[in-house]
Amino acid sequence: MLQSKPRNNHLNPFFEPESVAVIGSFKEGVFGGYVVVKSLLEAGYKGEIYPVNPGSYREVLGLKVYPSPKEIPTSADVALLMINARHVPGVMEACADAGIKSIILVADGFAERDAEGARLQNEVVHLAKSLGIRIIGPNTAGIANAMNGFNPCPYDAGYYRFKKGTVAICSQTGMINPQAYPYRDLRYGIGKICDFGNKCDLDECDFLEYVENDSDTQVISVHVETVRDGKRFLEVCKKVALKKPLMILKLGVTEAGARASASHTGSLAIDDEIFDAACRQTGALRLDQFSELFDMPRFFASQPLPRGNRFGMVSYTGAVGVAALDEGARHGLVRARLSKESSRMLEDMFSGLGHVPVDIGPMIPSVKDFSAVYAKILTAVLNDENVDCLFNVIWADAKGRNTKAYVEGYEALGENGHKPVATWVYGPSVTMVRDLTKQLESRGFPVFAEPERCIKALGLAYRYAKGRSERM
Amino acid sequence: MLQSKPRNNHLNPFFEPESVAVIGSFKEGVFGGYVVVKSLLEAGYKGEIYPVNPGSYREVLGLKVYPSPKEIPTSADVALLMINARHVPGVMEACADAGIKSIILVADGFAERDAEGARLQNEVVHLAKSLGIRIIGPNTAGIANAMNGFNPCPYDAGYYRFKKGTVAICSQTGMINPQAYPYRDLRYGIGKICDFGNKCDLDECDFLEYVENDSDTQVISVHVETVRDGKRFLEVCKKVALKKPLMILKLGVTEAGARASASHTGSLAIDDEIFDAACRQTGALRLDQFSELFDMPRFFASQPLPRGNRFGMVSYTGAVGVAALDEGARHGLVRARLSKESSRMLEDMFSGLGHVPVDIGPMIPSVKDFSAVYAKILTAVLNDENVDCLFNVIWADAKGRNTKAYVEGYEALGENGHKPVATWVYGPSVTMVRDLTKQLESRGFPVFAEPERCIKALGLAYRYAKGRSERM
Repeated sequence: MLQSKPRNNHLNPFFEPESVAVIGSFKEGVFGGYVVVKSLLEAGYKGEIYPVNPGSYREVLGLKVYPSPKEIPTSADVALLMINARHVPGVMEACADAGIKSIILVADGFAERDAEGARLQNEVVHLAKSLGIRIIGPNTAGIANAMNGFNPCPYDAGYYRFKKGTVAICSQTGMINPQAYPYRDLRYGIGKICDFGNKCDLDECDFLEYVENDSDTQVISVHVETVRDGKRFLEVCKKVALKKPLMILKLGVTEAGARASASHTGSLAIDDEIFDAACRQTGALRLDQFSELFDMPRFFASQPLPRGNRFGMVSYTGAVGVAALDEGARHGLVRARLSKESSRMLEDMFSGLGHVPVDIGPMIPSVKDFSAVYAKILTAVLNDENVDCLFNVIWADAKGRNTKAYVEGYEALGENGHKPVATWVYGPSVTMVRDLTKQLESRGFPVFAEPERCIKALGLAYRYAKGRSERM
Repeated sequence: MLQSKPRNNHLNPFFEPESVAVIGSFKEGVFGGYVVVKSLLEAGYKGEIYPVNPGSYREVLGLKVYPSPKEIPTSADVALLMINARHVPGVMEACADAGIKSIILVADGFAERDAEGARLQNEVVHLAKSLGIRIIGPNTAGIANAMNGFNPCPYDAGYYRFKKGTVAICSQTGMINPQAYPYRDLRYGIGKICDFGNKCDLDECDFLEYVENDSDTQVISVHVETVRDGKRFLEVCKKVALKKPLMILKLGVTEAGARASASHTGSLAIDDEIFDAACRQTGALRLDQFSELFDMPRFFASQPLPRGNRFGMVSYTGAVGVAALDEGARHGLVRARLSKESSRMLEDMFSGLGHVPVDIGPMIPSVKDFSAVYAKILTAVLNDENVDCLFNVIWADAKGRNTKAYVEGYEALGENGHKPVATWVYGPSVTMVRDLTKQLESRGFPVFAEPERCIKALGLAYRYAKGRSERM
């Protein structure tokens, strides 16, 4: 399948290298070449790894260290540079001499630092052009590809493999890289990660064009502070959002934020209202909070898109129902009216149960066999013809009395899997909440830490589905 | 100290009863009289507990069960009713006969259920007036007072005591009661909790007047969906917010939410814009999300108010700095400009460190002894004359290498304690993030789950301090 690997994109050698040169110090520590080599070995990267250092290192983790790029036996598809900024131009020339055309410039001290750094960054850009080199960075934590184990994380994350998934995420910050986000602990399925740092050359537009045709990627999340070429950005977003859900967190939206962004990335932010209007035109979904960069794509990656905007809700509490309706109204969702059949069936079960939000709280003190009724309630609501998606609120009690019933309820839903479900778990014991969360997520049902975010996830999914069908 | 116990308030017998009648079933389970008695005993309540049931129970948990309220040897200050709604009027009369004047009506099936329930609720209100009885409820999870162990939680929370604190919280939902929120696990200090349920009689205005003069209460958090007497609510908020930080989460703010609120609480919601303007007039702070009901008062309870709006920031990442500036602008905060002295001192430490956000990320790979520099950086920024408050971002690395340095840094701050600090901890290991969070919080420094919420907490604190000084 030609389409599965977008080989004609400049990012291909970065994500699918058959060999990598790691240029830096190999002293053990929290950062540097040693950490990169260890991460690649532990992550199961099958390509060739060539450590490069002109100093006294002979060997690192069983691999020979080469004194310079040109000593590498074959060329390398990509090189990581973790060296002092002022040595970068020289090493780039050495890389070019050795046939290396793709560089991850982890090194900092460029436009984000000071005027001298900005000058150096300009020099690097010009040199790269003349040498035919493409760059990710500088000032980047680099990339990771969970699919082939190419995870050259320059900071020690303490873990090296994580759950493979269909989410691709890129940013102007290392806050999305494995040393900053607990992908493994949160059972977060991920495919490709890319921090463009100061993005002196390649940027999110290249990333979007790359993942657009990457069959491993189904959902895309982008953090951006500055956009270099607004026209290209819009065109690319438009094209990609037609194929795959595309979410964008734009920081630097206030004047103060934009100025700060300019200083830490060395480039200019664009006006927020223009950006917002642009997003709406393209069909990309705009995010508001940092953690949504992870939370929202996770939802899209595991749940189908809804066919309409009517949300069902099963809950223990009227107040969260009210919060859900408030939040739903903000995202274009409306409360579903159950069909006569399901309404009657639920009313027969317990008086007052036959409408959304289906509040099972009052039933609890008198219910004899919760397991027997829970799956019935959950499937009745989700399968109702008037329900497009479900917000489910679960009380994890102190002793886990109903954990089995909840899990069985979700297993019954899983057999259908045709409508999205967002879940919030609360309760008096953090351990019980975490345990149930883990059980539901391991069955493919995302659980959110806030009730409002469940509704927002459903709302974004609805808006994406609606927007795409209108554009197609 | 007369002021310390507001005895002339109708809520006094509810929070400070010397005796309580528990009227309901005493079958073991997740809900009911048995759970209440157990909770009171385990929580260390020192008053008399009188279980009441006309059936075959003789004894529960070593306490004699009385067949009716009038058999109780002395009168009771308060009674909890966990009985079928239709029996409530009769039992109220029996309570009145036995001299009981305060009732927590846990029973549901009133105005929140259906028309018949609404009729019954009206009957209860009229009866209470004629009998001189005051009611919390119906449809309530009741109250808790951590200060005297009066924690008659009707649902099994699995824990009974929690950290005493100066926060008082009231609501129209049981989502604030111990069976719903993990007060113990989250080391959340709390004083008084009150769910008014359908609030057919006493409501948040009574609560506000009660805690206004309660010396145990320093911070107040209110969840409200409907307001019965807008004028009184405004007057009370105005009066209380002058004395103590008062936060309000108003749900039912959209048309859909308001309709749902009316149906589950049996009363009417008021227009959101009027509510918002009213809050601004009174000096109360408005909250936006459910979890802020807990998160924000926790911050006010442990941190001093800032003297101005200039926030300092120490961070590992420029991107979160940009997010902080965006969020700060929404709440009236501006980035602090460090004084020449601290700026120079920080620049001498590492080039580029001398301005806010103070980004220690670039320094990390080259720093030899982190412990030696961290406390110095943190105290320099917080103690700077141009800094009113601090947003601190911490990277908890995979191996906890710097945990000791972080804790020592905060201990150095603790000696000052004159400016508020909000902290966000992130990292590649959930365990390490939790461990460090626990260590900082046990030293009195609140840690938030989202970076934006740190800034919002500082912003609310600034707005409260500013608003109060303008009103005084």
